[in-house]
Amino acid sequence: MRFVRYASDGQPQWGVAVEDTVYALADTPAGEPTYQDIANPGYRATVERALETESLRGQPLADVTPLAPVPTPGKITCVGLNYFKHGEEQDEEIPEKPMLFSKSPTAVANPDSAIVHPDDVEDLDYEVELAVVVGKTAKHVDEADARDYVAGYTVLNDVSARDAQFEDEQFFRGKSYDTFAPMGPELVTDDEIDANDVDVELRVNGEVKQSSSTAQFIFDIDEIISYLSDVMTLRPGDVIATGTPGGVGIFREPPELLEPGDTVTAEVEGIGELTNHVVSE
Amino acid sequence: MRFVRYASDGQPQWGVAVEDTVYALADTPAGEPTYQDIANPGYRATVERALETESLRGQPLADVTPLAPVPTPGKITCVGLNYFKHGEEQDEEIPEKPMLFSKSPTAVANPDSAIVHPDDVEDLDYEVELAVVVGKTAKHVDEADARDYVAGYTVLNDVSARDAQFEDEQFFRGKSYDTFAPMGPELVTDDEIDANDVDVELRVNGEVKQSSSTAQFIFDIDEIISYLSDVMTLRPGDVIATGTPGGVGIFREPPELLEPGDTVTAEVEGIGELTNHVVSE
Repeated sequence: MRFVRYASDGQPQWGVAVEDTVYALADTPAGEPTYQDIANPGYRATVERALETESLRGQPLADVTPLAPVPTPGKITCVGLNYFKHGEEQDEEIPEKPMLFSKSPTAVANPDSAIVHPDDVEDLDYEVELAVVVGKTAKHVDEADARDYVAGYTVLNDVSARDAQFEDEQFFRGKSYDTFAPMGPELVTDDEIDANDVDVELRVNGEVKQSSSTAQFIFDIDEIISYLSDVMTLRPGDVIATGTPGGVGIFREPPELLEPGDTVTAEVEGIGELTNHVVSE
Repeated sequence: MRFVRYASDGQPQWGVAVEDTVYALADTPAGEPTYQDIANPGYRATVERALETESLRGQPLADVTPLAPVPTPGKITCVGLNYFKHGEEQDEEIPEKPMLFSKSPTAVANPDSAIVHPDDVEDLDYEVELAVVVGKTAKHVDEADARDYVAGYTVLNDVSARDAQFEDEQFFRGKSYDTFAPMGPELVTDDEIDANDVDVELRVNGEVKQSSSTAQFIFDIDEIISYLSDVMTLRPGDVIATGTPGGVGIFREPPELLEPGDTVTAEVEGIGELTNHVVSE
Protein backbone atom coordinates (compact mmCIF):
# COMPACT_ATOMS: atom_id res chain seq x y z
CA MET A 1 0.00 0.00 0.00
CA ARG A 2 1.24 3.48 -0.91
CA PHE A 3 0.69 6.26 1.65
CA VAL A 4 1.21 9.87 0.65
CA ARG A 5 1.40 12.89 2.93
CA TYR A 6 0.44 15.96 0.95
CA ALA A 7 -0.81 19.51 1.22
CA SER A 8 -4.44 20.24 0.48
CA ASP A 9 -5.65 23.81 0.98
CA GLY A 10 -2.37 24.40 2.77
CA GLN A 11 -3.10 21.69 5.36
CA PRO A 12 -1.03 18.51 5.53
CA GLN A 13 -3.03 15.33 5.24
CA TRP A 14 -2.60 11.67 4.49
CA GLY A 15 -3.83 9.86 1.43
CA VAL A 16 -3.55 6.45 -0.11
CA ALA A 17 -2.35 6.26 -3.70
CA VAL A 18 -3.77 3.83 -6.24
CA GLU A 19 -2.01 4.09 -9.56
CA ASP A 20 -2.13 7.81 -10.43
CA THR A 21 -4.89 8.77 -8.00
CA VAL A 22 -4.73 9.74 -4.35
CA TYR A 23 -7.64 9.30 -1.94
CA ALA A 24 -7.80 11.40 1.25
CA LEU A 25 -7.87 9.06 4.23
CA ALA A 26 -9.73 11.54 6.43
CA ASP A 27 -12.74 10.93 4.14
CA THR A 28 -12.71 7.18 4.80
CA PRO A 29 -13.74 5.10 7.84
CA ALA A 30 -10.01 4.42 8.30
CA GLY A 31 -9.26 8.07 9.11
CA GLU A 32 -5.89 9.85 9.23
CA PRO A 33 -3.20 7.35 10.18
CA THR A 34 -0.40 7.44 12.73
CA TYR A 35 2.82 5.54 11.90
CA GLN A 36 1.54 2.77 14.17
CA ASP A 37 -1.62 2.60 12.06
CA ILE A 38 0.34 2.34 8.83
CA ALA A 39 2.36 -0.53 10.34
CA ASN A 40 -0.85 -2.24 11.43
CA PRO A 41 -2.34 -4.77 8.97
CA GLY A 42 -5.76 -4.17 10.55
CA TYR A 43 -5.68 -0.47 9.67
CA ARG A 44 -4.52 -1.24 6.15
CA ALA A 45 -7.35 -3.74 5.76
CA THR A 46 -9.79 -0.97 6.69
CA VAL A 47 -8.25 1.27 4.03
CA GLU A 48 -8.45 -1.56 1.53
CA ARG A 49 -12.11 -2.09 2.30
CA ALA A 50 -12.85 1.62 1.95
CA LEU A 51 -11.18 1.65 -1.46
CA GLU A 52 -13.29 -1.31 -2.55
CA THR A 53 -16.66 -0.44 -1.10
CA GLU A 54 -16.95 3.33 -0.69
CA SER A 55 -17.35 5.65 -3.60
CA LEU A 56 -14.32 7.79 -2.77
CA ARG A 57 -13.50 10.87 -4.76
CA GLY A 58 -9.83 10.82 -5.66
CA GLN A 59 -7.48 13.48 -7.00
CA PRO A 60 -4.82 12.99 -9.63
CA LEU A 61 -1.52 12.43 -7.79
CA ALA A 62 0.05 14.92 -10.19
CA ASP A 63 -2.24 17.65 -8.82
CA VAL A 64 -1.15 17.38 -5.18
CA THR A 65 2.01 18.66 -3.49
CA PRO A 66 3.68 15.74 -1.74
CA LEU A 67 5.23 16.42 1.66
CA ALA A 68 7.92 14.57 3.59
CA PRO A 69 6.19 11.52 5.06
CA VAL A 70 7.81 12.25 8.43
CA PRO A 71 8.05 15.99 9.07
CA THR A 72 9.53 15.60 12.55
CA PRO A 73 11.28 12.27 13.03
CA GLY A 74 12.01 11.23 16.61
CA LYS A 75 15.51 10.57 15.34
CA ILE A 76 17.20 9.98 11.99
CA THR A 77 19.74 7.21 12.37
CA CYS A 78 22.00 6.51 9.41
CA VAL A 79 24.15 3.58 8.41
CA GLY A 80 27.47 4.52 6.85
CA LEU A 81 29.16 2.45 4.19
CA ASN A 82 26.47 -0.11 3.48
CA TYR A 83 26.89 -0.90 -0.22
CA PHE A 84 29.66 -3.15 -1.46
CA LYS A 85 30.73 -0.75 -4.22
CA HIS A 86 30.52 2.49 -2.14
CA GLY A 87 32.83 0.80 0.38
CA GLU A 88 35.43 0.08 -2.30
CA GLU A 89 35.24 3.67 -3.59
CA GLN A 90 36.27 4.94 -0.17
CA ASP A 91 39.06 2.35 0.10
CA GLU A 92 37.49 1.10 3.27
CA GLU A 93 37.45 -2.46 4.47
CA ILE A 94 34.04 -4.10 4.59
CA PRO A 95 32.75 -3.38 8.11
CA GLU A 96 31.84 -6.16 10.53
CA LYS A 97 28.86 -4.26 11.89
CA PRO A 98 26.81 -1.27 10.72
CA MET A 99 28.55 2.03 11.43
CA LEU A 100 25.97 4.45 12.82
CA PHE A 101 25.66 8.21 12.78
CA SER A 102 22.74 10.60 12.86
CA LYS A 103 21.17 13.59 11.14
CA SER A 104 19.23 16.29 12.93
CA PRO A 105 15.44 15.83 12.63
CA THR A 106 15.26 19.56 11.80
CA ALA A 107 17.02 18.80 8.49
CA VAL A 108 13.88 17.30 6.93
CA ALA A 109 12.72 18.92 3.67
CA ASN A 110 9.77 18.23 1.39
CA PRO A 111 9.85 16.90 -2.15
CA ASP A 112 10.26 19.66 -4.75
CA SER A 113 11.53 22.08 -2.12
CA ALA A 114 14.92 23.73 -1.79
CA ILE A 115 18.17 22.26 -0.60
CA VAL A 116 19.77 25.37 0.87
CA HIS A 117 23.52 25.60 0.16
CA PRO A 118 24.85 27.19 3.39
CA ASP A 119 27.16 30.15 2.95
CA ASP A 120 29.89 28.56 5.04
CA VAL A 121 29.85 25.24 3.15
CA GLU A 122 32.09 24.52 0.14
CA ASP A 123 31.47 20.89 -0.67
CA LEU A 124 27.77 20.11 -0.93
CA ASP A 125 27.03 16.53 -1.87
CA TYR A 126 24.12 14.13 -2.41
CA GLU A 127 23.44 10.56 -1.28
CA VAL A 128 20.40 8.59 -2.40
CA GLU A 129 19.14 6.28 0.34
CA LEU A 130 16.27 3.93 0.97
CA ALA A 131 14.83 5.03 4.32
CA VAL A 132 12.85 2.93 6.76
CA VAL A 133 10.09 4.61 8.77
CA VAL A 134 9.50 2.84 12.07
CA GLY A 135 5.87 2.02 12.92
CA LYS A 136 6.11 0.19 16.22
CA THR A 137 8.29 0.54 19.33
CA ALA A 138 11.22 -1.84 18.90
CA LYS A 139 13.85 -3.05 21.37
CA HIS A 140 15.98 -6.20 20.97
CA VAL A 141 14.10 -7.30 17.88
CA ASP A 142 15.17 -10.46 16.03
CA GLU A 143 16.00 -10.19 12.35
CA ALA A 144 13.16 -12.60 11.58
CA ASP A 145 10.64 -10.20 13.15
CA ALA A 146 12.18 -6.92 11.98
CA ARG A 147 9.59 -6.22 9.25
CA ASP A 148 6.76 -6.13 11.80
CA TYR A 149 8.22 -2.86 13.07
CA VAL A 150 8.26 -1.11 9.68
CA ALA A 151 5.57 1.42 8.79
CA GLY A 152 7.05 1.75 5.33
CA TYR A 153 9.88 2.89 3.11
CA THR A 154 10.63 6.22 1.54
CA VAL A 155 13.46 7.92 -0.34
CA LEU A 156 15.89 10.10 1.60
CA ASN A 157 18.60 12.28 0.11
CA ASP A 158 21.35 12.32 2.75
CA VAL A 159 22.65 15.72 1.71
CA SER A 160 26.13 16.23 3.14
CA ALA A 161 28.51 19.15 3.60
CA ARG A 162 31.72 17.21 3.05
CA ASP A 163 34.00 19.95 4.35
CA ALA A 164 32.07 20.12 7.64
CA GLN A 165 31.85 16.34 7.82
CA PHE A 166 35.58 15.83 7.35
CA GLU A 167 36.63 18.84 9.45
CA ASP A 168 34.70 17.68 12.53
CA GLU A 169 35.45 14.01 11.78
CA GLN A 170 32.08 13.47 13.46
CA PHE A 171 29.56 13.45 10.60
CA PHE A 172 26.72 15.08 12.56
CA ARG A 173 27.21 18.75 11.64
CA GLY A 174 27.88 18.15 7.95
CA LYS A 175 24.73 16.03 7.71
CA SER A 176 22.45 18.25 9.79
CA TYR A 177 22.11 21.68 8.18
CA ASP A 178 18.48 22.64 7.59
CA THR A 179 17.09 21.06 4.38
CA PHE A 180 19.79 18.34 4.33
CA ALA A 181 17.23 15.54 4.67
CA PRO A 182 14.74 15.77 1.80
CA MET A 183 12.34 12.85 2.07
CA GLY A 184 9.50 11.43 0.00
CA PRO A 185 7.48 11.32 -2.15
CA GLU A 186 5.58 8.28 -0.78
CA LEU A 187 5.62 5.94 2.18
CA VAL A 188 5.37 2.47 0.71
CA THR A 189 4.56 -0.48 2.96
CA ASP A 190 6.65 -3.61 3.20
CA ASP A 191 4.24 -5.77 1.23
CA GLU A 192 4.60 -3.45 -1.77
CA ILE A 193 8.36 -3.85 -2.50
CA ASP A 194 11.27 -6.12 -1.65
CA ALA A 195 13.30 -3.52 0.23
CA ASN A 196 16.42 -5.68 -0.02
CA ASP A 197 16.25 -5.76 -3.81
CA VAL A 198 15.19 -2.49 -5.39
CA ASP A 199 17.13 -0.21 -7.72
CA VAL A 200 18.37 3.11 -6.35
CA GLU A 201 19.51 5.95 -8.54
CA LEU A 202 20.49 9.59 -8.21
CA ARG A 203 20.59 12.14 -11.00
CA VAL A 204 21.93 15.69 -11.01
CA ASN A 205 20.39 17.83 -13.74
CA GLY A 206 19.20 14.63 -15.37
CA GLU A 207 22.63 12.96 -15.44
CA VAL A 208 22.94 9.67 -13.57
CA LYS A 209 25.49 9.89 -10.73
CA GLN A 210 24.57 6.94 -8.55
CA SER A 211 23.01 3.72 -9.77
CA SER A 212 22.83 0.52 -7.78
CA SER A 213 20.44 -1.83 -6.04
CA THR A 214 19.75 -2.54 -2.39
CA ALA A 215 20.70 -6.12 -3.33
CA GLN A 216 24.22 -4.65 -2.84
CA PHE A 217 23.53 -3.95 0.85
CA ILE A 218 26.27 -5.14 3.18
CA PHE A 219 23.71 -5.18 6.02
CA ASP A 220 20.15 -5.72 4.87
CA ILE A 221 17.01 -4.10 6.27
CA ASP A 222 16.41 -6.93 8.73
CA GLU A 223 19.96 -6.87 10.08
CA ILE A 224 19.94 -3.07 10.42
CA ILE A 225 16.65 -2.95 12.34
CA SER A 226 17.70 -5.78 14.63
CA TYR A 227 21.16 -4.29 15.25
CA LEU A 228 19.82 -0.80 15.91
CA SER A 229 17.11 -2.08 18.24
CA ASP A 230 19.78 -3.80 20.34
CA VAL A 231 21.36 -0.40 20.98
CA MET A 232 18.42 1.96 21.27
CA THR A 233 14.67 1.86 21.42
CA LEU A 234 13.13 2.60 18.03
CA ARG A 235 9.86 4.48 18.13
CA PRO A 236 7.08 5.11 15.61
CA GLY A 237 8.17 8.01 13.44
CA ASP A 238 11.88 7.28 13.72
CA VAL A 239 13.68 7.18 10.39
CA ILE A 240 16.55 4.88 9.47
CA ALA A 241 18.64 5.79 6.42
CA THR A 242 20.25 2.64 5.08
CA GLY A 243 23.34 3.99 3.36
CA THR A 244 24.22 5.07 -0.14
CA PRO A 245 25.89 3.38 -3.12
CA GLY A 246 28.97 4.59 -5.02
CA GLY A 247 29.00 7.68 -7.17
CA VAL A 248 28.78 10.48 -4.61
CA GLY A 249 30.23 13.79 -5.79
CA ILE A 250 33.19 14.14 -3.45
CA PHE A 251 34.80 10.86 -4.53
CA ARG A 252 34.43 11.44 -8.28
CA GLU A 253 37.58 12.44 -10.14
CA PRO A 254 37.49 15.36 -10.32
CA PRO A 255 34.85 15.94 -7.58
CA GLU A 256 31.40 16.99 -8.83
CA LEU A 257 29.62 18.86 -6.08
CA LEU A 258 26.23 20.53 -5.92
CA GLU A 259 25.85 24.19 -6.80
CA PRO A 260 22.91 26.58 -6.61
CA GLY A 261 20.74 25.99 -9.66
CA ASP A 262 21.26 22.22 -9.67
CA THR A 263 18.30 19.86 -9.63
CA VAL A 264 18.80 16.59 -7.76
CA THR A 265 16.55 13.58 -8.17
CA ALA A 266 16.87 10.60 -5.85
CA GLU A 267 14.86 7.59 -6.93
CA VAL A 268 14.11 4.22 -5.40
CA GLU A 269 12.31 1.61 -7.47
CA GLY A 270 8.72 1.17 -6.29
CA ILE A 271 8.79 4.31 -4.11
CA GLY A 272 9.25 7.10 -6.58
CA GLU A 273 11.32 10.13 -7.41
CA LEU A 274 12.38 12.75 -4.87
CA THR A 275 13.42 15.94 -6.65
CA ASN A 276 14.93 19.00 -4.97
CA HIS A 277 16.51 22.23 -6.12
CA VAL A 278 19.76 23.63 -4.79
CA VAL A 279 19.57 27.32 -3.86
CA SER A 280 21.94 29.78 -2.20
CA GLU A 281 21.36 30.64 1.42
CA MET B 1 13.31 30.37 38.81
CA ARG B 2 13.59 26.62 39.40
CA PHE B 3 11.22 24.37 37.47
CA VAL B 4 10.87 20.71 38.43
CA ARG B 5 9.18 17.97 36.47
CA TYR B 6 8.11 15.26 38.87
CA ALA B 7 5.78 12.35 39.34
CA SER B 8 2.70 12.79 41.48
CA ASP B 9 0.30 9.85 41.75
CA GLY B 10 2.26 8.32 38.87
CA GLN B 11 1.50 11.28 36.59
CA PRO B 12 4.27 13.62 35.39
CA GLN B 13 3.67 17.25 36.21
CA TRP B 14 5.54 20.52 36.48
CA GLY B 15 6.22 22.43 39.63
CA VAL B 16 8.18 25.45 40.72
CA ALA B 17 10.65 24.99 43.54
CA VAL B 18 11.20 27.58 46.25
CA GLU B 19 13.92 26.52 48.65
CA ASP B 20 12.91 23.00 49.76
CA THR B 21 9.29 23.16 48.68
CA VAL B 22 7.70 22.44 45.30
CA TYR B 23 4.40 23.96 44.16
CA ALA B 24 2.36 22.27 41.44
CA LEU B 25 1.93 24.70 38.56
CA ALA B 26 -1.33 23.10 37.42
CA ASP B 27 -2.86 24.50 40.62
CA THR B 28 -1.86 28.07 39.75
CA PRO B 29 -3.24 30.56 37.21
CA ALA B 30 0.05 30.00 35.29
CA GLY B 31 -0.84 26.38 34.52
CA GLU B 32 1.46 23.62 33.25
CA PRO B 33 4.25 25.16 31.17
CA THR B 34 5.65 24.33 27.77
CA TYR B 35 9.37 25.01 27.15
CA GLN B 36 8.28 28.20 25.37
CA ASP B 37 6.43 29.24 28.51
CA ILE B 38 9.44 28.63 30.71
CA ALA B 39 11.55 30.78 28.35
CA ASN B 40 8.91 33.50 28.45
CA PRO B 41 9.39 36.23 31.13
CA GLY B 42 5.62 36.87 31.03
CA TYR B 43 4.84 33.30 32.04
CA ARG B 44 7.44 33.42 34.79
CA ALA B 45 5.95 36.67 36.08
CA THR B 46 2.58 34.91 36.34
CA VAL B 47 4.21 32.11 38.33
CA GLU B 48 5.93 34.69 40.54
CA ARG B 49 2.63 36.43 41.17
CA ALA B 50 0.92 33.15 42.04
CA LEU B 51 3.68 32.36 44.55
CA GLU B 52 3.25 35.76 46.16
CA THR B 53 -0.51 36.13 46.18
CA GLU B 54 -2.17 32.72 46.18
CA SER B 55 -2.14 30.46 49.18
CA LEU B 56 -0.52 27.53 47.37
CA ARG B 57 -0.07 24.21 49.09
CA GLY B 58 3.48 23.01 48.52
CA GLN B 59 5.12 19.65 49.05
CA PRO B 60 8.61 19.07 50.42
CA LEU B 61 10.93 18.63 47.41
CA ALA B 62 12.41 15.63 49.19
CA ASP B 63 9.01 13.89 49.00
CA VAL B 64 8.63 14.01 45.20
CA THR B 65 10.28 11.90 42.53
CA PRO B 66 12.02 14.23 40.09
CA LEU B 67 11.83 13.30 36.40
CA ALA B 68 14.01 14.29 33.47
CA PRO B 69 12.94 17.85 32.55
CA VAL B 70 12.83 16.85 28.87
CA PRO B 71 11.56 13.28 28.47
CA THR B 72 11.65 13.40 24.67
CA PRO B 73 14.04 16.00 23.31
CA GLY B 74 13.66 16.96 19.66
CA LYS B 75 17.39 16.37 19.46
CA ILE B 76 20.30 16.15 21.85
CA THR B 77 23.26 17.96 20.35
CA CYS B 78 26.56 17.68 22.15
CA VAL B 79 29.76 19.68 22.05
CA GLY B 80 32.92 17.59 22.29
CA LEU B 81 36.08 18.82 23.95
CA ASN B 82 34.86 22.08 25.47
CA TYR B 83 36.91 22.43 28.68
CA PHE B 84 40.51 23.54 28.57
CA LYS B 85 41.70 20.74 30.85
CA HIS B 86 39.67 17.92 29.24
CA GLY B 87 41.26 18.91 25.93
CA GLU B 88 44.78 18.58 27.34
CA GLU B 89 43.93 15.17 28.86
CA GLN B 90 43.10 13.87 25.39
CA ASP B 91 46.23 15.42 23.92
CA GLU B 92 44.07 17.34 21.51
CA GLU B 93 44.75 20.78 20.21
CA ILE B 94 42.29 23.47 21.27
CA PRO B 95 39.58 23.42 18.57
CA GLU B 96 38.76 26.49 16.50
CA LYS B 97 35.05 25.75 16.50
CA PRO B 98 32.76 23.54 18.58
CA MET B 99 32.90 19.91 17.49
CA LEU B 100 29.36 18.55 17.36
CA PHE B 101 27.89 15.11 17.76
CA SER B 102 24.55 13.81 18.97
CA LYS B 103 22.89 11.39 21.35
CA SER B 104 19.63 9.61 20.63
CA PRO B 105 16.62 11.24 22.33
CA THR B 106 15.59 7.74 23.42
CA ALA B 107 18.62 7.67 25.75
CA VAL B 108 16.99 9.99 28.29
CA ALA B 109 16.71 8.64 31.84
CA ASN B 110 15.26 10.10 35.02
CA PRO B 111 17.13 11.10 38.17
CA ASP B 112 17.59 8.19 40.61
CA SER B 113 16.87 5.66 37.86
CA ALA B 114 19.14 3.02 36.36
CA ILE B 115 21.97 3.43 33.90
CA VAL B 116 21.78 0.07 32.16
CA HIS B 117 25.20 -1.41 31.38
CA PRO B 118 24.60 -3.15 28.02
CA ASP B 119 25.80 -6.73 27.74
CA ASP B 120 27.86 -5.97 24.65
CA VAL B 121 29.65 -2.95 26.17
CA GLU B 122 32.96 -3.21 28.05
CA ASP B 123 33.94 0.37 28.80
CA LEU B 124 31.09 2.29 30.40
CA ASP B 125 31.97 5.85 31.32
CA TYR B 126 30.46 9.04 32.77
CA GLU B 127 30.61 12.70 31.73
CA VAL B 128 29.04 15.46 33.81
CA GLU B 129 27.65 18.24 31.60
CA LEU B 130 25.70 21.44 31.95
CA ALA B 131 22.80 21.09 29.49
CA VAL B 132 20.84 23.88 27.85
CA VAL B 133 17.13 23.32 27.19
CA VAL B 134 15.93 25.40 24.25
CA GLY B 135 12.74 27.41 24.80
CA LYS B 136 12.28 29.28 21.54
CA THR B 137 12.87 28.45 17.89
CA ALA B 138 16.34 29.70 16.98
CA LYS B 139 18.07 30.16 13.62
CA HIS B 140 21.08 32.40 12.96
CA VAL B 141 21.00 33.84 16.45
CA ASP B 142 23.66 36.34 17.51
CA GLU B 143 25.71 35.58 20.60
CA ALA B 144 24.32 38.73 22.24
CA ASP B 145 20.77 37.40 21.93
CA ALA B 146 21.48 33.74 22.65
CA ARG B 147 20.07 33.71 26.19
CA ASP B 148 16.62 34.72 24.94
CA TYR B 149 16.33 31.25 23.43
CA VAL B 150 17.08 29.37 26.65
CA ALA B 151 14.27 27.79 28.68
CA GLY B 152 16.76 26.78 31.32
CA TYR B 153 19.68 24.63 32.35
CA THR B 154 19.85 21.15 33.75
CA VAL B 155 22.47 18.49 34.50
CA LEU B 156 23.10 15.77 31.94
CA ASN B 157 25.31 12.74 32.41
CA ASP B 158 26.66 11.98 28.93
CA VAL B 159 27.07 8.26 29.62
CA SER B 160 29.37 6.76 27.00
CA ALA B 161 30.30 3.25 25.87
CA ARG B 162 33.91 4.02 25.02
CA ASP B 163 34.52 0.77 23.14
CA ALA B 164 31.52 1.45 20.85
CA GLN B 165 32.49 5.13 20.51
CA PHE B 166 36.06 4.34 19.47
CA GLU B 167 35.18 1.30 17.36
CA ASP B 168 32.71 3.23 15.19
CA GLU B 169 34.83 6.40 15.31
CA GLN B 170 31.47 8.13 15.04
CA PHE B 171 30.40 8.75 18.65
CA PHE B 172 26.66 8.28 18.04
CA ARG B 173 26.24 4.60 18.95
CA GLY B 174 28.43 4.71 22.04
CA LYS B 175 26.48 7.71 23.32
CA SER B 176 22.99 6.50 22.43
CA TYR B 177 22.20 3.28 24.27
CA ASP B 178 18.98 3.49 26.27
CA THR B 179 19.51 5.23 29.66
CA PHE B 180 22.75 6.92 28.49
CA ALA B 181 21.31 10.42 28.96
CA PRO B 182 20.19 10.82 32.58
CA MET B 183 18.97 14.38 33.04
CA GLY B 184 17.75 16.51 35.94
CA PRO B 185 16.89 17.13 38.71
CA GLU B 186 15.71 20.69 37.97
CA LEU B 187 15.38 23.09 35.06
CA VAL B 188 16.85 26.36 36.27
CA THR B 189 16.25 29.55 34.30
CA ASP B 190 19.00 31.83 33.07
CA ASP B 191 18.37 34.53 35.68
CA GLU B 192 19.08 32.02 38.44
CA ILE B 193 22.73 31.12 37.65
CA ASP B 194 25.66 32.37 35.60
CA ALA B 195 25.84 29.39 33.27
CA ASN B 196 29.34 30.38 32.16
CA ASP B 197 30.67 30.26 35.71
CA VAL B 198 29.29 27.40 37.79
CA ASP B 199 31.12 24.46 39.33
CA VAL B 200 30.58 21.02 37.83
CA GLU B 201 31.47 17.82 39.60
CA LEU B 202 31.01 14.10 39.19
CA ARG B 203 31.33 11.48 41.88
CA VAL B 204 31.34 7.69 41.62
CA ASN B 205 30.36 5.99 44.88
CA GLY B 206 30.99 9.31 46.61
CA GLU B 207 34.53 9.74 45.26
CA VAL B 208 35.17 12.88 43.18
CA LYS B 209 36.21 12.02 39.61
CA GLN B 210 35.52 15.27 37.74
CA SER B 211 35.71 18.72 39.25
CA SER B 212 35.83 21.92 37.25
CA SER B 213 33.87 25.04 36.41
CA THR B 214 32.09 26.17 33.27
CA ALA B 215 34.45 29.16 33.53
CA GLN B 216 36.83 26.67 31.84
CA PHE B 217 34.58 26.46 28.75
CA ILE B 218 36.46 26.86 25.48
CA PHE B 219 33.16 27.92 23.84
CA ASP B 220 30.70 29.51 26.23
CA ILE B 221 26.91 29.11 26.25
CA ASP B 222 26.38 32.15 24.01
CA GLU B 223 28.91 31.02 21.41
CA ILE B 224 27.51 27.47 21.38
CA ILE B 225 23.91 28.56 20.87
CA SER B 226 24.87 31.03 18.16
CA TYR B 227 27.11 28.54 16.36
CA LEU B 228 24.56 25.73 16.52
CA SER B 229 21.77 27.99 15.32
CA ASP B 230 23.83 28.85 12.24
CA VAL B 231 23.83 25.18 11.30
CA MET B 232 20.42 23.94 12.31
CA THR B 233 17.14 25.27 13.61
CA LEU B 234 16.87 24.84 17.36
CA ARG B 235 13.39 24.15 18.64
CA PRO B 236 11.75 24.28 22.07
CA GLY B 237 12.58 21.03 23.84
CA ASP B 238 15.92 20.55 22.13
CA VAL B 239 18.78 19.83 24.49
CA ILE B 240 22.37 21.00 24.08
CA ALA B 241 25.03 19.27 26.15
CA THR B 242 27.96 21.62 26.54
CA GLY B 243 30.86 19.23 27.03
CA THR B 244 32.60 17.69 30.00
CA PRO B 245 35.74 18.54 31.99
CA GLY B 246 38.73 16.28 32.63
CA GLY B 247 38.61 13.20 34.82
CA VAL B 248 36.51 10.80 32.75
CA GLY B 249 37.12 7.13 33.49
CA ILE B 250 38.69 6.00 30.23
CA PHE B 251 41.58 8.49 30.38
CA ARG B 252 42.49 7.79 34.00
CA GLU B 253 45.59 5.69 34.58
CA PRO B 254 44.61 2.97 34.99
CA PRO B 255 41.11 3.47 33.52
CA GLU B 256 38.28 3.51 36.07
CA LEU B 257 35.07 2.52 34.34
CA LEU B 258 31.54 2.06 35.61
CA GLU B 259 30.36 -1.32 36.81
CA PRO B 260 26.96 -2.61 37.93
CA GLY B 261 26.46 -1.55 41.53
CA ASP B 262 28.13 1.84 41.09
CA THR B 263 26.31 5.03 42.02
CA VAL B 264 27.11 8.08 39.88
CA THR B 265 26.30 11.63 40.91
CA ALA B 266 26.66 14.50 38.45
CA GLU B 267 26.31 17.92 40.03
CA VAL B 268 26.18 21.44 38.68
CA GLU B 269 26.27 24.36 41.11
CA GLY B 270 22.86 26.02 41.36
CA ILE B 271 21.06 23.19 39.53
CA GLY B 272 21.49 20.22 41.82
CA GLU B 273 22.62 16.65 41.99
CA LEU B 274 21.71 13.99 39.42
CA THR B 275 22.25 10.52 40.88
CA ASN B 276 21.91 7.26 38.95
CA HIS B 277 22.65 3.63 39.63
CA VAL B 278 24.49 1.33 37.24
CA VAL B 279 22.78 -2.03 36.72
CA SER B 280 23.39 -5.01 34.45
CA GLU B 281 21.23 -5.39 31.40
